[in-house]
Amino acid sequence: MKSNNIGVLKTYKKDNDYSYTLGAYATIEMIQTRPEIIRAVYIHSNYNDKVLIENLCKSKNILRLYDDKIFAKISQKENCYVLGVFYKYIDTLEKNKPHIILVNPGDMGNLGTIIRIAAGFNICNVGIITPAADIFNPRTIRASMGSLFRINHRQFRSFDEYRSIYEQHRLFPFMLHAKTTLSLENCPKVDLFSLIFGNEAAGLDEEKYSNVGTGIKIPQSALVDSLNISVAAGIGAFLFANRNGLI
Amino acid sequence: MKSNNIGVLKTYKKDNDYSYTLGAYATIEMIQTRPEIIRAVYIHSNYNDKVLIENLCKSKNILRLYDDKIFAKISQKENCYVLGVFYKYIDTLEKNKPHIILVNPGDMGNLGTIIRIAAGFNICNVGIITPAADIFNPRTIRASMGSLFRINHRQFRSFDEYRSIYEQHRLFPFMLHAKTTLSLENCPKVDLFSLIFGNEAAGLDEEKYSNVGTGIKIPQSALVDSLNISVAAGIGAFLFANRNGLI
Repeated sequence: MKSNNIGVLKTYKKDNDYSYTLGAYATIEMIQTRPEIIRAVYIHSNYNDKVLIENLCKSKNILRLYDDKIFAKISQKENCYVLGVFYKYIDTLEKNKPHIILVNPGDMGNLGTIIRIAAGFNICNVGIITPAADIFNPRTIRASMGSLFRINHRQFRSFDEYRSIYEQHRLFPFMLHAKTTLSLENCPKVDLFSLIFGNEAAGLDEEKYSNVGTGIKIPQSALVDSLNISVAAGIGAFLFANRNGLI
Repeated sequence: MKSNNIGVLKTYKKDNDYSYTLGAYATIEMIQTRPEIIRAVYIHSNYNDKVLIENLCKSKNILRLYDDKIFAKISQKENCYVLGVFYKYIDTLEKNKPHIILVNPGDMGNLGTIIRIAAGFNICNVGIITPAADIFNPRTIRASMGSLFRINHRQFRSFDEYRSIYEQHRLFPFMLHAKTTLSLENCPKVDLFSLIFGNEAAGLDEEKYSNVGTGIKIPQSALVDSLNISVAAGIGAFLFANRNGLI
């Protein structure tokens, strides 16, 4: 039986074994997709839509708590009226589904945005090569609009570790100087693909990844140095998903 | 002859007739593309690459100033060592080139990112329907990576005002519930297009824009509510630019 006391909550730290969803949207996403990880949901006395979230919690047997002071302590954002507390968890990636692989993503906003892209285009398996921005930080979850809970994600200490486990995927590293220039006409038709994107500042190591699979370059004018990594991932994911019938 | 005194600089305000580029990258972009708008360039005594920027300024006859205290006052970012001061300016859009039209963009980061997308895909004319985020705010310029100076931009008080001046473009409003679902195969071949994107929270007014041109929907899974506006603009701009030979 669940206790209605979950102890003293601390401001988020990467080393904690639990984290937070801040706001109703991400919290509802979590309740609907991963109720088993949830320790409790806090509902602020000023929240307008209490009945909806209370019924949702009841239907999943989730502890509801009421303590307005916790919001100022944990969230620091003024318009946060629902707060979920959940245990961090470990996923695995599906072997027979396409992947997005992020090598050393450094920014939580970009990481969350790319997770949202992955979910939006039915590429629901995201691998992350560490070191990397913290996927469970509430800011990453907010940037993902709660779609973190809808995908499988897994961390790897190196690309080689990823590859040793997932041997069958055709690999497409996205690089500024790759040989193949992506177009609407030549986007590959391939069932099992991994789209690989580098760090927002450094990109992929071109020497290493020029020997990995089929390098892909998104054509662009000379007016910019590069595209934003989330935008590049959005374009790559859309083209591969559309060409291969995922959307 | 230019004075070497440009008066007391104030922290950025939307109503000022001047603004700032913060950092070497955006400042160099401005020097190379729009030297005529520049009042002065400040160079911090700790900056590593003084010779490059000094020579660039000299070659364009731009006033160089040295006053480390100005950085703390204007920039508030620790790693800013070059700061440009420029007069705001008014562009017009080219009538015979494709446009991107942003209806009430609310976030400076998204606005700058979409300007970078526009420059990257050679759609170098961006119209903005007000009210909108401030295009000359240093944060917008930073998000654009200085590519603001490489495109033409113009503000309009309404979409109808825009349309009354630019009558020839075929219009493609991007909406969640549009009739045409964009794909690699059906992306329109059309010389003169306007891609229209709405506010990040509200999107386009579907009732109004369902009567405007050809509504376009980017297909997406049911796992997400919508795509990030910058990602949607990146996908739309890439497809139209690639199909129509701009990149």
